[in-house]
Amino acid sequence: MNSEEKMDELFQVIAKRHSYRGEFKNEPVDPEHLKKIVQAGIDAPSGCNAQTTRFVIVTEPKLLAEISNYFENRAVCKTAKAMIVCVTDSTPAYGNVSFAREDCAAAVENILLAISALGYATVWYQGYVQKDQTAEKIAELLNVPNNLHVEVVLPIGVPITQEPPRPKKSFAERAFFNRYGAK
Amino acid sequence: MNSEEKMDELFQVIAKRHSYRGEFKNEPVDPEHLKKIVQAGIDAPSGCNAQTTRFVIVTEPKLLAEISNYFENRAVCKTAKAMIVCVTDSTPAYGNVSFAREDCAAAVENILLAISALGYATVWYQGYVQKDQTAEKIAELLNVPNNLHVEVVLPIGVPITQEPPRPKKSFAERAFFNRYGAK
Repeated sequence: MNSEEKMDELFQVIAKRHSYRGEFKNEPVDPEHLKKIVQAGIDAPSGCNAQTTRFVIVTEPKLLAEISNYFENRAVCKTAKAMIVCVTDSTPAYGNVSFAREDCAAAVENILLAISALGYATVWYQGYVQKDQTAEKIAELLNVPNNLHVEVVLPIGVPITQEPPRPKKSFAERAFFNRYGAK
Repeated sequence: MNSEEKMDELFQVIAKRHSYRGEFKNEPVDPEHLKKIVQAGIDAPSGCNAQTTRFVIVTEPKLLAEISNYFENRAVCKTAKAMIVCVTDSTPAYGNVSFAREDCAAAVENILLAISALGYATVWYQGYVQKDQTAEKIAELLNVPNNLHVEVVLPIGVPITQEPPRPKKSFAERAFFNRYGAK
């Protein structure tokens, strides 16, 4: 396999990845796969290499059920066989600036690609987690220290249905050569 | 090639990717590669699918030289054959919340992986861009509208040296099963 073919594998995973909000099959997520998925998050870059994101890999059915409760038992949460809870440390990395949000998002993107490549599916819950003290409730449930923050929850499983990716704007609407608005 | 092997390609790219701050070779970046790299950014997820990140692909030598000036002619900027300038729109996507920072970071991570997979190198400039009105100067240079913000600059080229990745904390320091701090 030459390097152009290798490239295509990456681009296929990137293009194929999309959010999944349906039910999951009653099949487990391989624990070795969970480790590889989280390692992809660990391998992501971070501002000043501060590595501010931590990951709690939830597989205990009782904990999964409690977290699902905080999401009003949405199908994708209620049937998830695992969840990755991303925890951030917003201690400044550079002057008084924290890149914790960027660090977490870059790690989540790697994790989404890994999940998709391994045949699982997920959806990126962040805004929802920051409402109604959900982040604080999950932090308490998972013994997350007070100086850290529960930022993102990713429910994982084997998808039942093939949901199509949501429509995206075209290249020409979002990318320009040399000057904004130019073709 | 089976799906396990496909998976390994993705993980190799993720593990191999790292920041590059050295000089670039005097070799161009293939314009078709630049399009594929930016398409990877377009394919990234965004909060509420709002697709808030825009990309200006800079290849004109005069513009590259001007941007490099704002970076005190650092080697990686001075010798870059192309730059991708990521522009954000922080209009709220969900209630009064903007995910523009997460959207941009997820897009940048896809772009970094694409750059690495194609044999090029880059470094993620964000904090530096937000100092000393650098973002505003670049916005003016590239005709970026006032309602948008220059968030990230990625200088691109073919690396001369093989810089090793910076050291990373171990899995056990950053990932836990079921409860924070647990093995």
